[in-house]
Amino acid sequence: MRAIDCIRKKRDGNKLNKEEIEFMVKGFAEGRIPDYQFSAFLMAIYFKGMDYEETFYMTKAMMGKILDLSDIEGKKVDKHSTGGVGDKVSLILAPLVASCGVYVPMVSGRALGHTGGTLDKLESIKGYRTDLTISEFKNVLKEVGCSIIGQTEEIAPADKKIYALRDVTATVESIPLIVSSIMSKKLSEGIDALVLDVKTGNGAFMRNYNKAKELAKAMVEVGERFGVKTTAFLTDMNQPLGCYIGNALEVWESVQVLSGENIEDLKKIVIELSAEMLSLAGWKIDDAYEELEKNLKNGKALNIWEKVVKFHGGDPKIVYKDDFLKTNIVHYIHSYEDGYLSYFDTFNIGIASCLLGAGREKKEDKIDHKVGIILHKKIGDKVTKNDKIFEIRANNEEKLKKAINILKKSFKIEKNKPLKPKLIYEKIKI
Amino acid sequence: MRAIDCIRKKRDGNKLNKEEIEFMVKGFAEGRIPDYQFSAFLMAIYFKGMDYEETFYMTKAMMGKILDLSDIEGKKVDKHSTGGVGDKVSLILAPLVASCGVYVPMVSGRALGHTGGTLDKLESIKGYRTDLTISEFKNVLKEVGCSIIGQTEEIAPADKKIYALRDVTATVESIPLIVSSIMSKKLSEGIDALVLDVKTGNGAFMRNYNKAKELAKAMVEVGERFGVKTTAFLTDMNQPLGCYIGNALEVWESVQVLSGENIEDLKKIVIELSAEMLSLAGWKIDDAYEELEKNLKNGKALNIWEKVVKFHGGDPKIVYKDDFLKTNIVHYIHSYEDGYLSYFDTFNIGIASCLLGAGREKKEDKIDHKVGIILHKKIGDKVTKNDKIFEIRANNEEKLKKAINILKKSFKIEKNKPLKPKLIYEKIKI
Repeated sequence: MRAIDCIRKKRDGNKLNKEEIEFMVKGFAEGRIPDYQFSAFLMAIYFKGMDYEETFYMTKAMMGKILDLSDIEGKKVDKHSTGGVGDKVSLILAPLVASCGVYVPMVSGRALGHTGGTLDKLESIKGYRTDLTISEFKNVLKEVGCSIIGQTEEIAPADKKIYALRDVTATVESIPLIVSSIMSKKLSEGIDALVLDVKTGNGAFMRNYNKAKELAKAMVEVGERFGVKTTAFLTDMNQPLGCYIGNALEVWESVQVLSGENIEDLKKIVIELSAEMLSLAGWKIDDAYEELEKNLKNGKALNIWEKVVKFHGGDPKIVYKDDFLKTNIVHYIHSYEDGYLSYFDTFNIGIASCLLGAGREKKEDKIDHKVGIILHKKIGDKVTKNDKIFEIRANNEEKLKKAINILKKSFKIEKNKPLKPKLIYEKIKI
Repeated sequence: MRAIDCIRKKRDGNKLNKEEIEFMVKGFAEGRIPDYQFSAFLMAIYFKGMDYEETFYMTKAMMGKILDLSDIEGKKVDKHSTGGVGDKVSLILAPLVASCGVYVPMVSGRALGHTGGTLDKLESIKGYRTDLTISEFKNVLKEVGCSIIGQTEEIAPADKKIYALRDVTATVESIPLIVSSIMSKKLSEGIDALVLDVKTGNGAFMRNYNKAKELAKAMVEVGERFGVKTTAFLTDMNQPLGCYIGNALEVWESVQVLSGENIEDLKKIVIELSAEMLSLAGWKIDDAYEELEKNLKNGKALNIWEKVVKFHGGDPKIVYKDDFLKTNIVHYIHSYEDGYLSYFDTFNIGIASCLLGAGREKKEDKIDHKVGIILHKKIGDKVTKNDKIFEIRANNEEKLKKAINILKKSFKIEKNKPLKPKLIYEKIKI
């Protein structure tokens, strides 16, 4: 077999077989196929796509060893979100689902582009280690019911190398490549089931609804072919999730929900995704809803959260201390008229948060965990002139200025009350 | 400027400007842009194409120094063929045009795929050096009127590097990339005008007529933008040109034409291309035809040919010696019925010649200059059962067997007399 023949075959729009895909992916991962051939291959995939079967083989070829969680008795289920602004669902959902006796072995990522990253959020808790070894991870999982760590060397090693190449060759935005990257990591976790939260709207990576749906379907197809029960939800990202954007800020809001607070859209999506996870683990759906609501009220979920933090080396009480959210500057952006909040430029709100220091502009940038943005209104809310819209938490005047410039153009007020945006558009199963 | 932005721009089907194209090509040629980015760029060009302006800037960016032929007074005109089977036109045309007082500074190539290469053909003359230095080349040109050499380090240095990358990334078959590769070399010769022979049909690289026409048009556009008068001919490659295929065999047939022999299609195409070259150099077309015919008859063209060979280190008399064409084996393939020769699989005839040893299967293969194929019939010829169709000249029984297997399936006999194929389809100028 020759790399050039595989490139040409894909370039000409033909379907590759299992052997050809393995030959290319493992060949590249193990250094037999040079990067200049693999990047041409990636670009051919960008243009010609891959069907579900090819995407499945691509995913499988990218996986290393699967985590062996067989000594932990019980169902293991994970969730993955394609990323959005203010999307702190994992922080709440993992302990909540664990509180119902289903294990959540979660391998998460960092801030990317305009979105935050679960690992960065967790690290706003001093001492929280996201780099547990696999045996430490399994231990936390066994003892607590869930654990959230970063990608290790063992998990989908080819993905790291391929992602680095995609990143510099303009081949990131390809559905089969996105699917195989996500699914090779998730399916390596040794899980029984997976729930996917695919975001669509002006703050999502896949803004276009049909593209997002295509992505969701492909991930479900790959998961099911692998023998992992998989459900995808298509959910709204035309406004940030919840009201807090930033690292410590999102941890704080998560703890509110875990403490029984009803933050409307955030809690709703957490419950829906969690219920689906329990359902895939064998629960009756009505029992699932009941148990989830109960465990948010009775402190069980919060208790698991605190244990997770403790087992990872952090102090859960730090969240309640005065200085957990304290920044040098607090600045408000107000409404310039009466009406209803009708529109957010969610992407730019994410960018503003990133510019404040909550994300990274360059890979080597250090994150400022305390900065961020609080929304005082959400879409559909009545607004009176001079009402606060955004609260900016900053530590640097320069950065604040940049954020203000963006944020003051990132919302619209209309006279007529707009419809509340739908939160969950569609549930995709096969 | 960043390479990834240029890749993405082309990937999304947008037009690149001069600066972006120069940034990419010179960046790659000079080692600032890594091959893995350039190969993704090439694949994006493969899919999204380039317009004439982009192709022109691509061509210019690939050129090194242009040969300075200003101390040779008179017009300098070259010809390029996209390659076919039995295409020995350069060997005849260069001395013929030179015999009319127009200089032909010709930089040629080697056998590629199923086609022969001018340099390999010339090297069947013992001692002929295709690797003259630029100053030797200029000297032969001045003294004799024409010289045929191979690509040097100085001529279009980026082309070599880009071609090597295209060759292993399945990005050879792209019109703007073919155009810039050919034209960057040809326009570096310091010529006033250029005639292009673009082959189409079952023995051409561009089998499809419309694709070949697209290629021809793009080359003319690029040449004219560069200030070099350029004409392209679309010519037939549904059968080999002339009757001899191989290296020494083609030299021998060329010398026949240069000696006044009328080998129908071969002589016709030589005259048409040569007349256009003279016309672009300022000649009246009728004078051109007259002078060309005259110089084939009166020995002037042959005399220049012999001088070229001598100046390049070869002995022109070698062609007439008994062993110039001598091989160990001569084998015939005969007609199995009466009728008319109606079809050649020209590509496979080229492959058969290559397998006999006239071309290279792998880059490191050595060429056997004497082997090849002689056609005893051409399309439209009356054939009686047991008439010779192919004469195979071989030096190895194994290779002969492979060639026989291919050749016996590479022609068709029909009861009805077919139309003679057209030799020249179209002349393209702007």
